[in-house]
Amino acid sequence: MANTVDQQHQLLYLLGRPTEPIFVPKGDRGAVFDIPSNDFLAERFQDVAGDLGTRFGEDTNVRVPVRNITLPDLSFPMRLGRQENFSLFLPWHREMATRLIEIFMGMRTYEDFLAVSVYARDRVNPYMYIYAMSVAILHRPDTRGLQLPPMSEILPEKFVDGGVFDRAREQSNVRNEGTRVPIEIPRDYTASDLEEEHRVAYFREDVGINLHHWHWHLVYPFQAPLNIVRKDRRGELFFYMHQQIQARYNFERLCNRLGRVKRLLNLREPIEEGYFPKLDTLVASRNYPPRPSGSKLSDINREADQIRFDIADLERWRDRIIEAIQIGRVINTKGEVVELTEEGGIDILGDIVEASILSINPNLYGNVHNLGHFLLALPHDPDQRHLETFSVMADPTTAMRDPVFYRWHAFTDDLFQIHKRTLPSYPANKLDYQGVRITNIEVTTKGAGKNEMTTFWEQNDIDLSRGLDFTPRGPVFARLTQLQHETFTYKIQVENTSNSQRMGTVRIYLAPKFDERGQPWLFRDQRNMFIELDKFVVTLGRQKTSTITRESSQSSITIPFESTFRDLESSRPSTGGQALEAFNYCGCGWPQHMLIPRGTPEGFPCQLFIMISDIKDDMVEGSSAGNGACAESASFCGIRDKKYPDRRSMGYPFDRVPRSGVDTLQQFLTPNMAVTDVRIVFTNRTEPGRSVSNQLP
Amino acid sequence: MANTVDQQHQLLYLLGRPTEPIFVPKGDRGAVFDIPSNDFLAERFQDVAGDLGTRFGEDTNVRVPVRNITLPDLSFPMRLGRQENFSLFLPWHREMATRLIEIFMGMRTYEDFLAVSVYARDRVNPYMYIYAMSVAILHRPDTRGLQLPPMSEILPEKFVDGGVFDRAREQSNVRNEGTRVPIEIPRDYTASDLEEEHRVAYFREDVGINLHHWHWHLVYPFQAPLNIVRKDRRGELFFYMHQQIQARYNFERLCNRLGRVKRLLNLREPIEEGYFPKLDTLVASRNYPPRPSGSKLSDINREADQIRFDIADLERWRDRIIEAIQIGRVINTKGEVVELTEEGGIDILGDIVEASILSINPNLYGNVHNLGHFLLALPHDPDQRHLETFSVMADPTTAMRDPVFYRWHAFTDDLFQIHKRTLPSYPANKLDYQGVRITNIEVTTKGAGKNEMTTFWEQNDIDLSRGLDFTPRGPVFARLTQLQHETFTYKIQVENTSNSQRMGTVRIYLAPKFDERGQPWLFRDQRNMFIELDKFVVTLGRQKTSTITRESSQSSITIPFESTFRDLESSRPSTGGQALEAFNYCGCGWPQHMLIPRGTPEGFPCQLFIMISDIKDDMVEGSSAGNGACAESASFCGIRDKKYPDRRSMGYPFDRVPRSGVDTLQQFLTPNMAVTDVRIVFTNRTEPGRSVSNQLP
Repeated sequence: MANTVDQQHQLLYLLGRPTEPIFVPKGDRGAVFDIPSNDFLAERFQDVAGDLGTRFGEDTNVRVPVRNITLPDLSFPMRLGRQENFSLFLPWHREMATRLIEIFMGMRTYEDFLAVSVYARDRVNPYMYIYAMSVAILHRPDTRGLQLPPMSEILPEKFVDGGVFDRAREQSNVRNEGTRVPIEIPRDYTASDLEEEHRVAYFREDVGINLHHWHWHLVYPFQAPLNIVRKDRRGELFFYMHQQIQARYNFERLCNRLGRVKRLLNLREPIEEGYFPKLDTLVASRNYPPRPSGSKLSDINREADQIRFDIADLERWRDRIIEAIQIGRVINTKGEVVELTEEGGIDILGDIVEASILSINPNLYGNVHNLGHFLLALPHDPDQRHLETFSVMADPTTAMRDPVFYRWHAFTDDLFQIHKRTLPSYPANKLDYQGVRITNIEVTTKGAGKNEMTTFWEQNDIDLSRGLDFTPRGPVFARLTQLQHETFTYKIQVENTSNSQRMGTVRIYLAPKFDERGQPWLFRDQRNMFIELDKFVVTLGRQKTSTITRESSQSSITIPFESTFRDLESSRPSTGGQALEAFNYCGCGWPQHMLIPRGTPEGFPCQLFIMISDIKDDMVEGSSAGNGACAESASFCGIRDKKYPDRRSMGYPFDRVPRSGVDTLQQFLTPNMAVTDVRIVFTNRTEPGRSVSNQLP
Repeated sequence: MANTVDQQHQLLYLLGRPTEPIFVPKGDRGAVFDIPSNDFLAERFQDVAGDLGTRFGEDTNVRVPVRNITLPDLSFPMRLGRQENFSLFLPWHREMATRLIEIFMGMRTYEDFLAVSVYARDRVNPYMYIYAMSVAILHRPDTRGLQLPPMSEILPEKFVDGGVFDRAREQSNVRNEGTRVPIEIPRDYTASDLEEEHRVAYFREDVGINLHHWHWHLVYPFQAPLNIVRKDRRGELFFYMHQQIQARYNFERLCNRLGRVKRLLNLREPIEEGYFPKLDTLVASRNYPPRPSGSKLSDINREADQIRFDIADLERWRDRIIEAIQIGRVINTKGEVVELTEEGGIDILGDIVEASILSINPNLYGNVHNLGHFLLALPHDPDQRHLETFSVMADPTTAMRDPVFYRWHAFTDDLFQIHKRTLPSYPANKLDYQGVRITNIEVTTKGAGKNEMTTFWEQNDIDLSRGLDFTPRGPVFARLTQLQHETFTYKIQVENTSNSQRMGTVRIYLAPKFDERGQPWLFRDQRNMFIELDKFVVTLGRQKTSTITRESSQSSITIPFESTFRDLESSRPSTGGQALEAFNYCGCGWPQHMLIPRGTPEGFPCQLFIMISDIKDDMVEGSSAGNGACAESASFCGIRDKKYPDRRSMGYPFDRVPRSGVDTLQQFLTPNMAVTDVRIVFTNRTEPGRSVSNQLP
C-alpha cells in the first residue's frame, strides 16, 4: 500500500481540487501522476514543462503510473472555456459533454481510461470534466465498484454559502490540522424571515436533497450515449421522482403556513419570488446570478451559448403536448400515431416533457422542461449583452435551491396530471387484496407519544478541503444545520384469511390531514399530497394475524446518512465509530434525514396511509427493492442494471382520480389499506449529528 | 537596512493582504511584527497563540518592533463584521470609521500609531481599516511623508475583473516568479456591444479614474474629525470636480454616438440601464450585486445597516434645496437666513447637497447625494430580506463604473446649475484682461496633423499579489487595456500691449464642436461641455509678442502615469527605467492617460478654448498650482494644507450663463481668449505601456 495508489484514490485525486493542475501532488500523501510525456500537460504549462519536475513531487515516492496512449482529439469539448460555467440544460454544453463521455466510455481498459482522464483533466472545463467522469465511472464495467466522492466535497461551492471559503482558507493556512475549527454556516444565510418563501429554505437548500437531484440526473442523463440514457421506465420515473419532490415541498410549506406552490403558467408575468443563492462558482470565477423579485422573462438569444428560443416556442410546445394528452395519442417522427396507453403513456410523456433524447418527436413537442429551466435561469441577461452566466436554475446541482424550481415543476407535473386524469380510475378490485386485511397501524418513536414523529435541527460537518484549491492539505469543515428526525417504527397488524402464505407489497405514504385553509381534503386533491415513505415486500404466514415491524431507517426511498456525510479518503471512522456503508453508484436517493417533513411545535396533523398490494400485480421478474447493487433508493432511482422493481404505475394507488363515489380518503380505502392520524412534532433545538468531528469546539 | 523595516514598508505590510493575520510574515522579506503581548492578537487566534511562534516567522530576522500601549476600546468599530462590506455612504459605517480615524489620529507618536494599527488590523473590518488607516496616514503630521500604495494594488478586487483572481492564484502557485505570465483582462469584460452604454465602459471602468474618485473622497471625506473635513472651498470643489466628470463623460459619449446623460429625475420609474460589474468583494466573500435592466427603486429600511429613508424624503429634500436656491437663501440650524452669495453660495450648496457634516442644516436639507447613492445601490434588496449587500454605487472606489452614477450626478449637477443660473453673468470686463491678447493658439502632436490630437489603446500591468492573500509571494500581473493619447503641445501666441510685465492664468478647455444632433451648440449648453485640460500661471514679458509653450503632460488636473501604475515596494524601476516620481498624498488627480476623450477614427471635431485671465482676480495668497506638496492636480484636488489656488469661481469662465447677446462661443470671446478647431483622431491599435513588465510574453 505504501507507495501504490488504489483505483479508488486515483479517481479521487483526479476529481478533487479541480483547478490544481495534474502535476501538483495529490491527496494527503502527495501522490504524483507519472505522465509518460509532456504531451499530457495542457498547452498553458508547456513552457514550464522542464521546470515542473524540480518543483513538484520530487520528494514523494507515491506515484501513479500513467500509460502512454494515442491521445484523443478534445478540440470539440475544449470549445467550452475552462472558466465558463457549465449547464446540462444547454444543448451545446450537453453535446460537448456527450463527446467527452464517449471518449471516456470508449477506452478499452482501466489503464487507458486513467490515461485519458489524466490527459483531459487540465484541458477541458472542470465542471464538464467532473460530470463526464462521474457518468463514465458509474457506467464503465471496470469502474462500477468504485465509489464516487460526494459532489458536495468535490465542488462544495455548489452546496454551501460562498462566504465560507475565505474563512476556510484562513483556517487552512493559519491553523495546523489539529487546531482547525469547523466553520458554522447559519441556517438562514440566503434570506431573512421578511421573505416568506425563506421559511422552507431549509428544504430547498438542503445538501442531501440537492445531492440527490444531481445524482438522479447523473443516473438518468437526458442526453448521453443511448445505452446510458435508455433505462427502464425512465420517462415515468422523471414524472414520479419530481412529483414526489413537489408533494414533499408542498407538505413542508403547509407545515410552515405557506400555501401549495402556484404553477408557473404565465411566462409573460413578472416572477414574484426573488432568490439570491449566495453561491460562488469558484471554477467559473463568478457567483451564481441572483434573481430580484419582479424579474421578467425574455426570449433567449445567446450567441456564445449557441441557443435561441422564444417564450412563444415553449407555449406552443406546451399546448401541443396538452392537446396530444387530451386526444390520447402522440405523433412520432415518422408521422405515425402512438397511443398514450394506461401503462406506457406516462413513460412516453416523461421523455417528451423533460425532454430526453428518447423523446418520440422533439421537433413537434420540443423541449419544454429543460428549456424552461434555461429560460428561468436567464431573466437578467437573455441576450448575453452583459456577458452573464445563468443562475442556479440551469444546473441540476443547484436548481432545487430556487423557489421558482417548484413553480416550474408544479407546471410540468400538471401536464402529467392532465394525462393521469384521462386514465381509468382504479376499481376497488384493482386496489384490494382478497384475504389480506390491515387491522391496525401505528407509529412509535422513542420518547414520543403514540403516533407521534419528532423532528429537530441537527448539525453536520462537510469537509471543504477538496474544493480549496492551492491551500495546505487536511480537512477544513463547514458545519451545517439541517432538519433531522428521531427514527421511528411502523407496526402493521395484518389479518390473512386465505389460509395460505401470501406475499404483498407494503406501501407507506404520509399526507397532511388538512389543506392550507385548515379544512379536510377532497381526495382528488389530497392524493397528490401523499409522500412515499417506504415500500417493501412482505410474506404473510398462514397464521391469521401477524404484525409487521419496519424501521423508518429502512426506507426504500432514502439513502443512509453516511452517503451524504462521509470522508472517503480517510480511513478513520469520522462518523462516530459507526461502520460506513458502501457508498455506491446510487448516491442517488432521498437523504434519510429528510424522510419526513418538519411538522410544527404543536404537532402537525397528518394521515399515515399503509396498504398491502397483491404481489402478482407488483412483481417484476429478477428485480425487487432492497435487492441488487444500488437498491437503497429503488423507488426514486430504480436499481442498477435491472428493471424498475415495481410493476404498478409509479405513485400507485394515488396516481389516478378516484373511482366514482370516492370524495374522501376514508371512502377510498379497501380492506387491505389503513389510515391513522399521526402528528409530527417539531422541537426547535439543535443537536450535534453523527458526522460532527471531534475537532476543537 | 538588512534587518530593519522602514516606516514606508511597515505601513505597506499593514495594508497589504488584508485577510492574512498580523502574525503571518509580511512582504518579500518575510518581515514579522514583534507584538509585545498576546493581547495584540485577535480573539479568534487566542487559542493558538502559543503555537504561532513556532509556525510563523521563526526563520526571519526582519522584525518590526511594536510598542506596548494602553489598548484602545474598539468595540464600536468592531460592530461591523469582518466579512461585511463597508460603505462610506452609510451613516452607521461612517460613524464607526470616524471613531477609528479618531483613535488613529489621537496616538501621540508614530510608534503608538503603529502599535494601535497592529492591534486593530485583525479585529476591525478590513475595508474600514484600510480606509481609516489611509485617512490617518494622509493627515497625521508624522506620516505625511509616507506614500500610500495605490488602492488598486491593495484591493485589486475593487478595480479589476473578479475572474482574474483564480487565474492569478494558479500563476502564483504553479509558476516561479520568473515564469509568471501577465493575465490579460479583455477590454470588454462587463458587457458586449449589444449594450449601447457599454461603448463608454472604458471610461467608467478605467482604473485611474476610479482611483481618482476614491482618493478625492479620501482627501475630502464628508464625515471625519472636523479638522479633516473642513477644507477650503470643499463644497464648491464637490460641485466642480463632479461637474467636470459629467462633462468628460458626456464628451466621451458624443465620441461614441451616444447622447448626453439623462438626469435621473424620476425615482419612481424603472431604471433602464443595467449594470453587471463582475467585481468580487474578496474580503466580504460576496460579489457586488448586479442591477438588471428595468430595476425599480424602493424605500430603504435595512435594520442591520441601521438605515431607513423613503424616496419621498429625497424628493422633499430636493424640492427644499431647489426652493432655497431659487429664493437665494438657506436657513441654518439656528433658524437664521443665510444668503447664497455669488462667491460663497456654491460652497454652502455643495456641503448641503453632498451632504457633508458641514451642511448648514442637515435636518432641513437632508442628505440628497449620499442617500441617493445608497438608494441606487439597493434596488435588489431594499429591506435586506435577502441579506444582500449594496452594489458598486455605494462605494466611492467602484461607483463610477456604473452608468447610473452619471445619471444621478447629472441630476445633482443640475441643482448646482440652477444656482449658477441665478447668478449674474460675467460682464465682458470681468472676462477681459486689458492689454493681453491671444493672437493664435495651436496644438501639435508628434506624427499628427496640425491641431490634431491622437488616441489609441495601451496595455498596462497591475500587480495583484498584494490582494492574493495566502499565496506565494512575488508579483502576479493583470494586464489592462486603457485609453491613451500621444502627448501634445499647446502653442499660445500672446500680445502684451501694456508695456510692462504682466502675469496671468492660462486656462485651457476643450469641448465638442457639435451636439449629439451634429448641430452647432448654443453657448448656454456648450459651456457645460467644456472640460478643463490645464491651468497655469504665466508671466508675460515686456516684449509685445511672445509664445507660450506647454506640454499636455504638465496638466494641472492630472497626476502622472506612475501614480496609477507603480510598485512601491519594489526598488527596481518597473516602468521601463523611467524615474518614479514621488507618489504623494494626492493619488488624487485625474489620470494623465485619460486627459482627453477618445475621439473618433475620422477625427472628432472639437473646440479648444484658451484664455489668459488677470492675475489680480486669480491669485490666492500663498497658494498656487504646481507649487506645494501634492499640487499636481490642484484643479481637481486642491493643494494640501493650502487654500484652493485660484480665487475665481471654479469652472470660470464657463460657470455662468453668458452675458446678454451671447448665443455662441464666438460671441463670448474677449481679446484675451481664443478658440480653434481641433480634432481627436482615434486609432484602434493597442500598444504596450510603460508599466508593462518584462516577464514572459
